[in-house]
Amino acid sequence: MTPELKQTERIDDLQINGLKLIQDAEKYCFTSDAVLLANTVTVNKKSKVLDIGTGSGIIAVLLAGKKNAAHVTAVEIQPDMADIAERNVKLNNLDDKITVLNVAAQKLPDIMPVECFDVVVSNPPYKKIDAGEMDTNVCRAIGKYEIKLTLKELINTAARMVKYGGKFYLIHRADRLAECIYEMKLNKLEPKKMWLIRPRADKAADTVIFECIKGGKSGLKTDTVVVYGEDNEYTPRVKAMYYKD
Amino acid sequence: MTPELKQTERIDDLQINGLKLIQDAEKYCFTSDAVLLANTVTVNKKSKVLDIGTGSGIIAVLLAGKKNAAHVTAVEIQPDMADIAERNVKLNNLDDKITVLNVAAQKLPDIMPVECFDVVVSNPPYKKIDAGEMDTNVCRAIGKYEIKLTLKELINTAARMVKYGGKFYLIHRADRLAECIYEMKLNKLEPKKMWLIRPRADKAADTVIFECIKGGKSGLKTDTVVVYGEDNEYTPRVKAMYYKD
Repeated sequence: MTPELKQTERIDDLQINGLKLIQDAEKYCFTSDAVLLANTVTVNKKSKVLDIGTGSGIIAVLLAGKKNAAHVTAVEIQPDMADIAERNVKLNNLDDKITVLNVAAQKLPDIMPVECFDVVVSNPPYKKIDAGEMDTNVCRAIGKYEIKLTLKELINTAARMVKYGGKFYLIHRADRLAECIYEMKLNKLEPKKMWLIRPRADKAADTVIFECIKGGKSGLKTDTVVVYGEDNEYTPRVKAMYYKD
Repeated sequence: MTPELKQTERIDDLQINGLKLIQDAEKYCFTSDAVLLANTVTVNKKSKVLDIGTGSGIIAVLLAGKKNAAHVTAVEIQPDMADIAERNVKLNNLDDKITVLNVAAQKLPDIMPVECFDVVVSNPPYKKIDAGEMDTNVCRAIGKYEIKLTLKELINTAARMVKYGGKFYLIHRADRLAECIYEMKLNKLEPKKMWLIRPRADKAADTVIFECIKGGKSGLKTDTVVVYGEDNEYTPRVKAMYYKD
């Protein structure tokens, strides 16, 4: 069934398991960071997952439709983005595996039991609201700037929602790595693995992915992922992450 | 003048500016980490530096004798190591530039003015006291394990001794990176640069060096230093750090 699309919408092929995603060129569109994060997360068929700031639902769709998580609660504060996410759930026949909630992440501890998720994942807005001129498109600005959710609020919420021993995955800009670690440790989310993402082998890391364990012992493994090779193609490691089931 | 040496002592040539260092094979000997750290530190001819846990004085000698810091206060808790450091100051004719203090680092705020150093530097013991079987040699154990100085105490002391806007440099094991960042930020030492040290290009980082600014704004630059090339020689970058004045 081909869904009805609004004029500025398109359907992207996620190139795995026949998964597809409606996106609206006039709103916030997902970046490669979301795909990288989803493909770094470890879930199993019993995992109950919370995706904070799901946008068009890319991470939720990949975790449920590719990685076979038991269930994903996908939270999105913007009604029009939550609407796209909802339609993406239907488009991929994932109604029984993904629930889209159009609420502020900060409200979650008030509307559902805390410390119940096996995995919490987030590709949040990266920039502080004072970090340069904002996108004039409000939807995109909310996706990119900490207008509705600060890093501190995000990590505090993740820590409250994930169960003891559960995992929190976060992707962020490498220059905010120290802030991430500080807030994680303040909230008993112990960083256990950190992947520094370098666009190319000769470039510095611009992005970082964390895997934390709630209540974990201190001790961090670091790794580096280079995204593009000299041939301008994905490196074999990234290809394996993206295209293997 | 050739100094008198104890039976287990030797003199190592530091291969820069004629600098030499007495070391005692029966006690704690410096590792390449100390040299790497000293060569990462930025000082100028007006810099007043504090070296916490100087051991045989390697970092103090390099900062005063190679990098021309105005003055280094080199603190060492072990009397026999402080004695070696003292003799290394004389051996290199650096009496007017280095003061060795045989005190516990934690006592520094009680015996000298706080917030007066431009730069604080430390290559501390890396291991928690519960991290495996300790060296039976007490001197070496104190150099390697947090027997006399924990990471928390070190960073708290550094934060009290460095002036506002001054710099703190720390080298540590990469698996304790998150602990370092957490304690730094708790103590208003903002990590501004982080070098991940990889022994070889195909190995993960095992060591990390931080440059913090007391009271600095958040925002971190990350970089990677590979120590050895495929030819088992230092990489050009490390050679330039070590052998250029």
